[in-house]
Amino acid sequence: MNPELCVVGVDFGTLSGRAVVVRVRDGAELASAEHLYAHAVLDRELPDGTPLPADWALQVPADWVEVLRTAVPEALAAAGVRAEQVVGIGTDFTACTVLPVLADGTPLCELPAFAARPHAYPKLWKHHAAQGQADRINALAAERKEAWLERYGGKVSSEWEFAKALQVLEEDPEVYRRTERWLEAADWIVWRLCGRYVRNACTAGYKGQYQDGRYPSSEYLAALHPDFAGFVADKLEQPIAQLGDRAGGLTAEAASWTGLAEGIAVCVGNVDAHVTAPAAVAVEPGQMVAIMGTSTCHVMSSDRYGTVPGMCGIVDGGILPGLWGYEAGQSGVGDIFGWFVRTGFPAEYAAAAEAAGQDPHAHLTALAARQKVGEHGLVALDWHSGNRSVLVDHDLSGVIVGQTLATRPEDVYRALLEATAFGTRTIVEAFETAGVPVRELIIAGGLTRNALLMQIYADVTRRPLSLIGSTQGPALGAAMHAAVAAGAHPDIRTAARAMGKVERGVYLPDPHRAAAYDRLYAEYRTLHDYFGRGANDVMHRLRRIRTEAS
Amino acid sequence: MNPELCVVGVDFGTLSGRAVVVRVRDGAELASAEHLYAHAVLDRELPDGTPLPADWALQVPADWVEVLRTAVPEALAAAGVRAEQVVGIGTDFTACTVLPVLADGTPLCELPAFAARPHAYPKLWKHHAAQGQADRINALAAERKEAWLERYGGKVSSEWEFAKALQVLEEDPEVYRRTERWLEAADWIVWRLCGRYVRNACTAGYKGQYQDGRYPSSEYLAALHPDFAGFVADKLEQPIAQLGDRAGGLTAEAASWTGLAEGIAVCVGNVDAHVTAPAAVAVEPGQMVAIMGTSTCHVMSSDRYGTVPGMCGIVDGGILPGLWGYEAGQSGVGDIFGWFVRTGFPAEYAAAAEAAGQDPHAHLTALAARQKVGEHGLVALDWHSGNRSVLVDHDLSGVIVGQTLATRPEDVYRALLEATAFGTRTIVEAFETAGVPVRELIIAGGLTRNALLMQIYADVTRRPLSLIGSTQGPALGAAMHAAVAAGAHPDIRTAARAMGKVERGVYLPDPHRAAAYDRLYAEYRTLHDYFGRGANDVMHRLRRIRTEAS
Repeated sequence: MNPELCVVGVDFGTLSGRAVVVRVRDGAELASAEHLYAHAVLDRELPDGTPLPADWALQVPADWVEVLRTAVPEALAAAGVRAEQVVGIGTDFTACTVLPVLADGTPLCELPAFAARPHAYPKLWKHHAAQGQADRINALAAERKEAWLERYGGKVSSEWEFAKALQVLEEDPEVYRRTERWLEAADWIVWRLCGRYVRNACTAGYKGQYQDGRYPSSEYLAALHPDFAGFVADKLEQPIAQLGDRAGGLTAEAASWTGLAEGIAVCVGNVDAHVTAPAAVAVEPGQMVAIMGTSTCHVMSSDRYGTVPGMCGIVDGGILPGLWGYEAGQSGVGDIFGWFVRTGFPAEYAAAAEAAGQDPHAHLTALAARQKVGEHGLVALDWHSGNRSVLVDHDLSGVIVGQTLATRPEDVYRALLEATAFGTRTIVEAFETAGVPVRELIIAGGLTRNALLMQIYADVTRRPLSLIGSTQGPALGAAMHAAVAAGAHPDIRTAARAMGKVERGVYLPDPHRAAAYDRLYAEYRTLHDYFGRGANDVMHRLRRIRTEAS
Repeated sequence: MNPELCVVGVDFGTLSGRAVVVRVRDGAELASAEHLYAHAVLDRELPDGTPLPADWALQVPADWVEVLRTAVPEALAAAGVRAEQVVGIGTDFTACTVLPVLADGTPLCELPAFAARPHAYPKLWKHHAAQGQADRINALAAERKEAWLERYGGKVSSEWEFAKALQVLEEDPEVYRRTERWLEAADWIVWRLCGRYVRNACTAGYKGQYQDGRYPSSEYLAALHPDFAGFVADKLEQPIAQLGDRAGGLTAEAASWTGLAEGIAVCVGNVDAHVTAPAAVAVEPGQMVAIMGTSTCHVMSSDRYGTVPGMCGIVDGGILPGLWGYEAGQSGVGDIFGWFVRTGFPAEYAAAAEAAGQDPHAHLTALAARQKVGEHGLVALDWHSGNRSVLVDHDLSGVIVGQTLATRPEDVYRALLEATAFGTRTIVEAFETAGVPVRELIIAGGLTRNALLMQIYADVTRRPLSLIGSTQGPALGAAMHAAVAAGAHPDIRTAARAMGKVERGVYLPDPHRAAAYDRLYAEYRTLHDYFGRGANDVMHRLRRIRTEAS
């Protein structure tokens, strides 16, 4: 192998895209560049001012293309890498982010006639306005005992392809009618790069309910809505490619955007979380990677199939070809800490933090780190953004129990950190109870920087923590897949061993703290089941009352 | 009646005493004056520097006398009232505030030999270091099925006369031995004014466990501690006078302190909350007065006896002669709002409040007032300082359910306001369920200033709110009792009608908001019973874990 060969990985996130130039031989990240989307997230209005209802979240496809035009050449230049050294480009995307396009891939929102139609725009993963559709999708699937349902923890999300498409059909039938392909942004960007539309196995399985070689049946779809019967055949179905496959060669147009050479390998699409697993060298059964940021995504491959409750999805080859890919998640983690700092950080603390040169998180963390386990007298439920796994209920909400007149902000902050650790332990235990062993816990994502949080996770889960060795996990993982697509490594396992980065045993559980946490975790689980499993449906009722009042 | 006749009321609070000069004919408050206690509350050390343990709270009797020497003459001067116009003086005190004295009334702490002995000082109501004694008092009473126990909701407080006395006996037997009388400050100050020690019916019943003509038996006391058997006979028992009775005539010494005429009527002692009832013209059965400040005290007289659960006390003639006096309470109200502002009011809000010229409470209240009922999606339990009525459990703690990433400080603030209203409704319903009707709800105390809070109470309880027409409720009530003691009015009912002040129907319930609150209240009650009645004892366990960790 030419020691100079490189690949480019591009990670399309919620607010920006990042390109990284990676050496094929050893995974060295030579340079990276970020481009912020000009329109960020459309959650109040369209670019022309058309207002959007609550719970909507859209994006603008041209913003994504702009990442190719700016971040990729910038990263190349910063790396001092010549185009001819780069043998492939790989991407990963948020998911499920879906859009309606014409047969040639033109987004409907780019047609002047549809520029003021919200449903013509890509629906970002966190568009939550299709909950009604998702509820019906789930109820009908349960009623009909659809076999695929158990692969998704008994509930599919309002974020996914079918719910969002059904919302379009029901709320703007004309947009639906004009939609020739309904596809993941992950695949759309690859189409733009190589001129060929292939559907990646990851989003097909995780977001498109593709299981055992088929989508939900047209009988089922017709029962949801008569006009939905042909959705799969007319708008969704497309040849499926495995992760790491070559989708095609870089087009001349895309070469001109990126500064890369025409014809180099373009890898099939992938998803940010899933692509992080090989980046963290998690290529063996039972290596769970928790990507911890605003939310946490847990991805793990296994040779065993088990019906783990509350999975986001169990997909054959969904993370690594040849293994069952499990995806679980916590819908709120870093964003809960962020919410607390935004709404519960008093002026006096802000002044002290500033005097100490600390940001609010660092300040609260330093104060919280002085405490012994349980000293704050609190236990919280980390459901401020709902519960993804294992309850699969987005209408749940946060709880804190035990506040007294002596409770301080750092007490609540620590209780929230701990609550998310309890959430992860709940997920790990669900795997093991279902007969799917979790052999290692690897942490990736921005929250790895918080040493207190990491130590709490080690203590609460009673496991040594491994940490990914890169701050660009998704882009690195995308680049690794590009190396496979280019034939520079024979498969993703080999690529991961050469290019992936992990440090093992960075945080070790302390037996005394772990024992103390067992008691708090028991309280968490009791409250978890009380509020989450129907004993007291107060959270649902509060949400209903809230909706009616607003 | 001479239209110029006046009385003086003196309210001895936690940090200061206030004297008010009131016209007998119509209750006009002609002037008032306040005197801050030089030693405020001794909770860290004695005046000589002797350190105090946690949970202690003492006072200095000379500070109280100083109120008579300064505030009374100041108020008289400010009112332009001559001594010969004043026919009587009445007082009210915090309770249970108790002290050990010699047979002549000299406080033990004023003897040089005892100046450095903490147990020789008056124990302020909020001295909480006798919890161990209270626990044993309750356990033994339950075991022996002592009849008086149900009058106190099944639990007496560590704040009361027996627990505090037993603490003295067990921790400083010499002080206990030298104690010739163990008496309420409410009665001590009257003794200083008229030279005669009479025990008032209110504190005897509410704080001295005096029921049906007797105190707890010497057998019971002996079972608590052999040396405690004679406590009642030796140190406590004293003729009991009814509220509004004349205790005696003002002594020459007290006349010289106060500038009042020797021999005028000195009324028997009374308690701040209880004396507020007639000040608010609550002199008929079923008129409940809620005195809302850092905590809330609910006082109500009734011609019916019912075992209302979780009462602080049910005392015959405890508020008005001839009626059963009921006292209930919420241990945290204004101090919960204060805690929230101290710990959960972000810098950005502080800046906005300052720009608007609002204090934090006014700022949050203005924001919260814009919301519809239930719009915040929250329900809270107001137990940050425990629950006095109806659960009588000081180890309970606060809960908030329903927080999302969109929850703002004003949402939580409003939920806390509402939680205290739910707490009051729970108390009102406990009365009615026990067959003791609540006919009117009258609010007194500092929180009457918060119009949003008042409206919430009206809506939540579905009752028109009456408001006391004075900001000096206790002192006014004390003055009214003085008028009765002086014979200027035949009884407290007549005095209240002439001198008391109430505005009726100041806040009226809105049927729509009330209906919306019914739903939230139902959630509150479910959580109340779940966390408060043993279904999930998590709060007790968290407190234990906290204690072990600290």
